Formats: sequence, C-alpha cells, structure tokens
Amino acid sequence: MPTNTDDIALPGRTAPLAMDADTFRALGHEMVDQVAELLATLPDRPVTRGETPSEVRAALNAERDLPETGEDAGAVLGRATTLLKEHSLYNGHPRFFGYITSPPAPIGILGDLLAAAINPNVGAWVLSPMAAEMELQSIRWLSQLVGFPDDGGGILVSGGNVANMLGFWTARVAKGGLEVRTAGMAGIGGGRLRAYGSAETHTWIQKAADLAGLGTESVRWIPTDEDLRMDVGKLRAAIEADLAAGDRPFMVVGTAGSVSTGAVDPLPEIAKLCREFDLWFHVDGAYGAFAAALPDAPSDLKALAGADSVAMDPHKWLYAPLEAGAVLVRDADRLRDAFSYHPAYYHFGQSAINFFDRGIQNSRGFRALKVWLQLQHAGREGYVRMIGDDCRLSRELHRHVADTHELEPHHQSLSISTFRFVPDDLEERAGEEAVGEYLNALNRAIQARLEREGEAFVSNAVVRGRYLLRACIVNFHTDTDDVEALPEIVVRTGRKVDAEMRTEGLGEG
Amino acid sequence: MPTNTDDIALPGRTAPLAMDADTFRALGHEMVDQVAELLATLPDRPVTRGETPSEVRAALNAERDLPETGEDAGAVLGRATTLLKEHSLYNGHPRFFGYITSPPAPIGILGDLLAAAINPNVGAWVLSPMAAEMELQSIRWLSQLVGFPDDGGGILVSGGNVANMLGFWTARVAKGGLEVRTAGMAGIGGGRLRAYGSAETHTWIQKAADLAGLGTESVRWIPTDEDLRMDVGKLRAAIEADLAAGDRPFMVVGTAGSVSTGAVDPLPEIAKLCREFDLWFHVDGAYGAFAAALPDAPSDLKALAGADSVAMDPHKWLYAPLEAGAVLVRDADRLRDAFSYHPAYYHFGQSAINFFDRGIQNSRGFRALKVWLQLQHAGREGYVRMIGDDCRLSRELHRHVADTHELEPHHQSLSISTFRFVPDDLEERAGEEAVGEYLNALNRAIQARLEREGEAFVSNAVVRGRYLLRACIVNFHTDTDDVEALPEIVVRTGRKVDAEMRTEGLGEG
Repeated sequence: MPTNTDDIALPGRTAPLAMDADTFRALGHEMVDQVAELLATLPDRPVTRGETPSEVRAALNAERDLPETGEDAGAVLGRATTLLKEHSLYNGHPRFFGYITSPPAPIGILGDLLAAAINPNVGAWVLSPMAAEMELQSIRWLSQLVGFPDDGGGILVSGGNVANMLGFWTARVAKGGLEVRTAGMAGIGGGRLRAYGSAETHTWIQKAADLAGLGTESVRWIPTDEDLRMDVGKLRAAIEADLAAGDRPFMVVGTAGSVSTGAVDPLPEIAKLCREFDLWFHVDGAYGAFAAALPDAPSDLKALAGADSVAMDPHKWLYAPLEAGAVLVRDADRLRDAFSYHPAYYHFGQSAINFFDRGIQNSRGFRALKVWLQLQHAGREGYVRMIGDDCRLSRELHRHVADTHELEPHHQSLSISTFRFVPDDLEERAGEEAVGEYLNALNRAIQARLEREGEAFVSNAVVRGRYLLRACIVNFHTDTDDVEALPEIVVRTGRKVDAEMRTEGLGEG
Repeated sequence: MPTNTDDIALPGRTAPLAMDADTFRALGHEMVDQVAELLATLPDRPVTRGETPSEVRAALNAERDLPETGEDAGAVLGRATTLLKEHSLYNGHPRFFGYITSPPAPIGILGDLLAAAINPNVGAWVLSPMAAEMELQSIRWLSQLVGFPDDGGGILVSGGNVANMLGFWTARVAKGGLEVRTAGMAGIGGGRLRAYGSAETHTWIQKAADLAGLGTESVRWIPTDEDLRMDVGKLRAAIEADLAAGDRPFMVVGTAGSVSTGAVDPLPEIAKLCREFDLWFHVDGAYGAFAAALPDAPSDLKALAGADSVAMDPHKWLYAPLEAGAVLVRDADRLRDAFSYHPAYYHFGQSAINFFDRGIQNSRGFRALKVWLQLQHAGREGYVRMIGDDCRLSRELHRHVADTHELEPHHQSLSISTFRFVPDDLEERAGEEAVGEYLNALNRAIQARLEREGEAFVSNAVVRGRYLLRACIVNFHTDTDDVEALPEIVVRTGRKVDAEMRTEGLGEG
C-alpha cells in the first residue's frame, strides 16, 4: 500500500533528460559538424581573444540563476557551442606556444564521445570489464613507448599533478613503512621524512608534501648547474647532511623535461645515488618522458627506465584531449600498498584489477579510451615522427631567434625554446641593474600584449632573475611557417610595446 | 645553421594524428549513429555479460604489444566500438540497480564531445576564459539546486572521493592552522587532530586521513542508531573524551545518503555541535545532496545548507557521464588557504579565478560543460521530477518486496532499498546462527549469479552481520515495469541458487 499519496503516480515516467535515438542522431551530427568546422578553421581564428573576465561574464550572462524550467537540448547545445567558439583560447592552434598543452587529437575527441556513451565506471572491474582491460593495455603500451618495464603497475589520472602525487604517496609508504597510513606522520616516530628535487622541480612537489602531511619544509630544493639540471654532488651532500642530522631521506625526484626550459636532470647519476641510499627514485616526466621514445633520445632521458615510478601526461605529448595523466610504477604491489584498503583477494581474485586499489579515486571515468585509440592510430612510428618533428621545429625556431636582430636566445631543450626581446640601444647595457629590470618589465608586457592580441601565444620562464619568453611545441598542427613567423611577431610587438613604455616614462632611469 | 643533419627536413609536416574535416565528419557521424543505436537498444541488451577477466582479455587480445605502425582511424574506432558494446556493463540500463552509478544523460555525452574538441585547460583562467566562467556558473547553480549558499567557493573534481578529500584537506588547514602546510603533521605540535564520522561513513574518510598524513587512527567512527544514523550523543561524548585527552577535534563528517542504505545523519544536531566546539562541518552528500532539491525533502537533509563544505557527485544524481564530482565550500577563502601557492593578485587580479588555486590539479579538463548543459536542459523542475521519481520508484520496489513471499524487506531511504531472499523453510529459523550464515552465503551467491546472467544487477549491503541485496535507483531510464520485475527475478534466481547450494551440501548444518 502506498504510504505517500504521491506514490500512486508513475504510469510510465517521462524524464526531461531522456532523448530518443533520432533526436540524439540529429543533435550529434550537428555537433560533429560544428567540431569539424572548428578543426578546419582553427588556423584562421585568433589563438585567444584576450578578453577580460568582465567581458567573458557579460557574454555568458554569468549572473543568471539556475533556470526553473528546462530548455530544448538543441538550443542549449547551440548556445554552448557559440559561446565556446567565440570566447576560448585554442591550445590546438598552430601558433599556441604557451605552457605545455597540446591540441586534442581528433580520434581522441571521438574517443571521449564513446567513453561518455558507454560510461563505464573504471574504478571496479565488474563495472567496466572491457574498459578496465583497455586501461591496463594502455598502461603497458605507454611503458613500452618510453622504455619503462611493462610488467609493473600504473594508473591513468587527471594529469601531472596527481600522477606525481601518486608517486610521492607511494614512495612515502614504500620507504616510510605501512604504519604511516594508520599512525600518520606524527605517529611514526623517527626522523623527519625528506624528499629531494632540483630547484626546477614543478610546484606539484610543494602540494604533494603539503597534502601528504609532510609539510613543504620537508622538501630539499637542490641547486642546478648552468644548464638548469640537478647538481648531483649537492644532492649527495644534502642527503648526507640530513642523515647526519637524524632525518630520513625517502625519495628523490628527477625532472625529465622541466617546465621552464625543458632541462632533463642527470637521471643515471640520480638512480645510482638512490640505490646507494635506498631511496625511492621518481621521475617527473609529465612533459618529457615521451621524448624517450625517440631513437636518438639522450641517455639521461632514457634512464627513466630505471626509476621506481614515472609520471607522464598523455594530454601533453601524446596529444590527447584533457584529461589524461599517467603514473607508471615498477612494482605494482607498492601502488597497492599505498592505496588499497582491500586484501588482494577482494571480490574477484587477483586476476581482476580494481583501479580504486591503485589511486585516490573510487568512481573513475574512461580516460584510457583516447589513449588506447591514439596509440594504435599513430603507432610507435607515428609518435616518434610527431615528437621528433616538434623537437626539430623548436630547434629551428631557436635558430630563427638567434638570427633575429633584437631577440636574444637563451635555452633550447626538447621542444622548448626561451629568448627575450632586447631593444637595439639596450643590447650593450643589458647587464645594468636598471636596464635588466626594464627588460623584465618589457618582456612581461610583450607577453601580455601577445596574449591580448591573439596572433600567437607564448608563456614565460624566469631564469636567474631574467624574465624570458618561452615557446613550447607539443602540437602536430605547428609547422615551419609558424616557427618562421613567431620571431617577426615578437619583434613587431616588442617594438610597439617598448615605444609605448618609453613614452609613458617607464623606460627611463 | 642546422646543428643536426636531421634538422634540415620538415617542408610541411604530415602528422599521423591530423585528420581533415571531411574525415572527422564522416567518422563522427558514424560514431554518433553507433551511440544512437546503443541508446535505442539498451533495454534489450544484458546489463552485463558477467564475463571473467580471461574472457575479456581474450576478446581484447590483451597480450598484444604496442603497434609499431599506425592504423586507419576508422578501423581503430570500429574495433573499440564493437569491443565496448559487446563486453561492457551498462550502468544506464533500466535494470541496473547496483552501487550508485547513473546513466549518462545524452546531452551530457554530447557535452563531453564538445569539451574535448574545445579542449580548454580549466586550471588557469587565461587558458579557458569561457570554460572557467561556465564552471563557476555551474557551481553556483549546483549550490542553488540543493539550497547551499551560492556566494561561496567550489570546484568540480573527478568524483566523490576527491570531493570529500578536498573538504578534509580544507578543514585540516582551516582548523589546524596554515602552518600545517609548511611544517607538516609532525611539525605543528599540540594534540592529535581528530575527525569524526558515523560508522556508515564511506571509505573515502580512511583514504583522506591516510593521504593527508593524519593516519586512519585519527578517525573516530561514531556508532549509529537503529536507522543507521549517527548517534549525536555518542559524537558529543567522543569529542569531549578526546578534548580531555589533549587531542584536537577539527571536523565532523555528516553523511547525507549513506552508500549502504541511504541513511541521512541528523545534520541539524551535528551542525549545532560543530558550532559549539568550533569544528568544521563537512557533509558527504555525494549521493544524497541532490535530493535536498525536493520540496518535501526531510529537514535533516536540507540542513546541509549549514555545512562548511558539501561534496556532491553530478555523475550520480545529476545523471552526468563520468567523471563529475563537486565540492562546495561556504567560504571560498578557506579553499584557497588550503590549496593555493599564489598570492591572490597572481597574474590576472582577483577577479579571474584560477582553479589550480582551489584543488589538487594543475591542468584540468572541462567536466563542467556537461553539468552546465544538463542543468539548463532539465531545469530545476526537471531535476525535482527525475529525482522524485527515482525515490518513488524505490518506495514502490520496497512495497513489491514486502508483498513478495520469500523476500524480506530491510531498509528504504532516498532511492535505496535493501532486502534479502529467505527460503520458505528457513523463515522461522533465520535467527539461528548457522541459518544466518547460510542466508548470507546464499544472498551473496544470488548477487553473483545475477551479475553473471545480466538480467538485472544489484549490489549489496552488510548491516549488522546480515548480507543484504541492495537496489539503488539513480536512473531516469528505470520505470515501473523494472521495479515490478526485480522481485520476481530475485526470487527465481534465489530458488535456483538455493537448490544448487543444498544439493552441494552447503545448506546443511
């Protein structure tokens, strides 16, 4: 018997989100056509409109409250498409040289469509049988691509931060002991756990040390050599000093492709030191690990094969749509030790992998599908070609920069090039403190102006007090004409901004 | 001058992942048609094939190594589609009653397609102007949907685990002090930080305490009353005892819709206690928070409005494709205090939100788009109708269970119903220990059999030593005929399994 009067209803429910197959087909074809149009017209669009938050909010009608009543799916989708096409930055644009963000591979875009439609929950094997196996295969393939042992563990995650954090948490338990998980950092006694990375290590290490309860003070930032690579002699000295002080060194982070300049730490030497002191060797290869696939990759990079764990981001140099990060772990049991709350025989026996045992998520999406598709669509050869071309284009760009009057080349490594604009009359005086400060302000302003005008997009690096422009190519749409054009764009913008700043009196003194 | 001989090449690169617009259009239309076919035929497919890992691996050819050469995109996509259609569990199937996983809303599927094509990096505002603003608007709308203050902070994350963990980390800094971040848990001195949740709290709290460096022993599991709701008297006693012992209580987790039975903790009383003792009040509403949108929602649930932070999963009761979790935080500054490494004026001024300041990710995908689309497509009214219908169907199911000979109803709350199969001759003897054990084994076996046969899918709850079958409806495809059918399916399967187990001698003793 119904207990609530409203419980009598429901003779065939109608749901506002339900959609019949014909409507889905029509709206889906329209959306595919919109995306195809975007792919075709991308080079003709600005990289970004450089709008202010207020301008974007006005276009969105950001103050609007949650609508009471529903709206036709086509109308909502149409509005979204228009707003996004007109007010986005396109990291797939051939002249997007900023940060480390790749174009989304078209087959990966379709992969995300299929993943959402199948909608497997890749946390538990039983909820995602084929998807979970495809993820396992993708992890093995990623290992094979970069020369890491392919019989270990691994998991796909949101991106580099979480991939690196998983390495950090795994190291914490592997070297700090299982009691860390129950007793906590304050409860395990002994000296303070210490992690080591070069001064060029990405900010994730701060977040990891903070969020894992070690505190940022537990991180030792090791100075770098003139090429911005970790000074291994100073690493040894720091470890020995900490040991002498009663602390407990537990991991070293080697960076394989620094964000600023693409520098690769001397991984073979770091690996050796980790073996000597029984430390976990983690490699942050979020960007650079993929370049280990190149036959002529430097031996420093190939030595990531000797790490205990490696972070790498398929949404960087595998050109997958966001989000796709990955961590590979030499010994799958260490990953389980750090994250599982289930005995190994849980539910399905050891042969079924439940990914919730390997990371921080419980429910998980199917980000593996795009990786699985892309690795087959391009093959190893295809990736070697695309990654190699990005590196060659970066070297070509650096040569154009060197050949360009008023541009001062700095670093070139992997597919990153740094340089700055130096006005003619300041070239000889760049060493003066006031001139150095002006050049920093000038190049910061050039970067902002480029960002606003949308012809090309660069980000920056600050190296030894110098504000540099930084072009990173992880983009199979970028070609020779783009790297030929960039120096001219920067010089033209630089002259304009310089003139403005001098007029405003900022160039004096 | 080229420094490498290979640097001379590149007269117009060709990239294996590049795809012209016509090819994308053709492959995209084909994929959309495949998805439309799936949507149309879902009810006629098994919920799952119940295959073993070996069977799935054989179908996948899981041992295959990374291909050397690339392959036509259409062929790869076709293989993926076939493999996934034939070897997946469909959480969108109308007779999927397991765990808490919803069907993917069709408009959300198209949202994930568009999100991947635009590919904004929603970590930094400059890389995702419109997408970041859409995420902010979505967070405000989610707040308005469930009655939480809409002028606070929030962020979309992968799912409930991370959403709840963000609440935990935020509480740790808000109540433990900023020095937690630098000095770590071992460095701050003072008593041990203590978190409190009911015995029904989801396992995320273990992971959070572990990964945040507090250790699982820092969690106090408060006993529940007969309705499996936190006993607030015992919560008070635990807090007072810990204070007396010199520990530092810092947060209480109220569960709004437990995973096992949908129980909602007495949130108003917990809120009051948190104010009294100056504790952070976090609500795990990953599942149940959405039901606060119902006009007749229980006052216990509506009291989530008084929390400091609330976790809720759009990929649960907003019916979004995986992944979409969210955490709402009353005071946005607390979120920044816990996660930002940048002063507030960083780069773009306070008016531009960089989501990397609000959580653990740096690069971030555009999971907000499906949420933004779906909230407008259904409107508040549509969600009230769909969520209300799910709850009504659950109550209807529970009545059918009660009316069904051999089924024993247990709990019903929100859209979860629990029950078990009890053979006729054991009904009077269910209290005997051996019989109780047999019933547990029997119902476990029934669940496994259902899983293998794919006619309907339920999961389980273990309550006070009893193994119960558990049906959860967060599915706008589920209708009256499905909840009418389930009891018959369970009884038919139960009789068969019971007979087999008795034949095998497992029923004796």
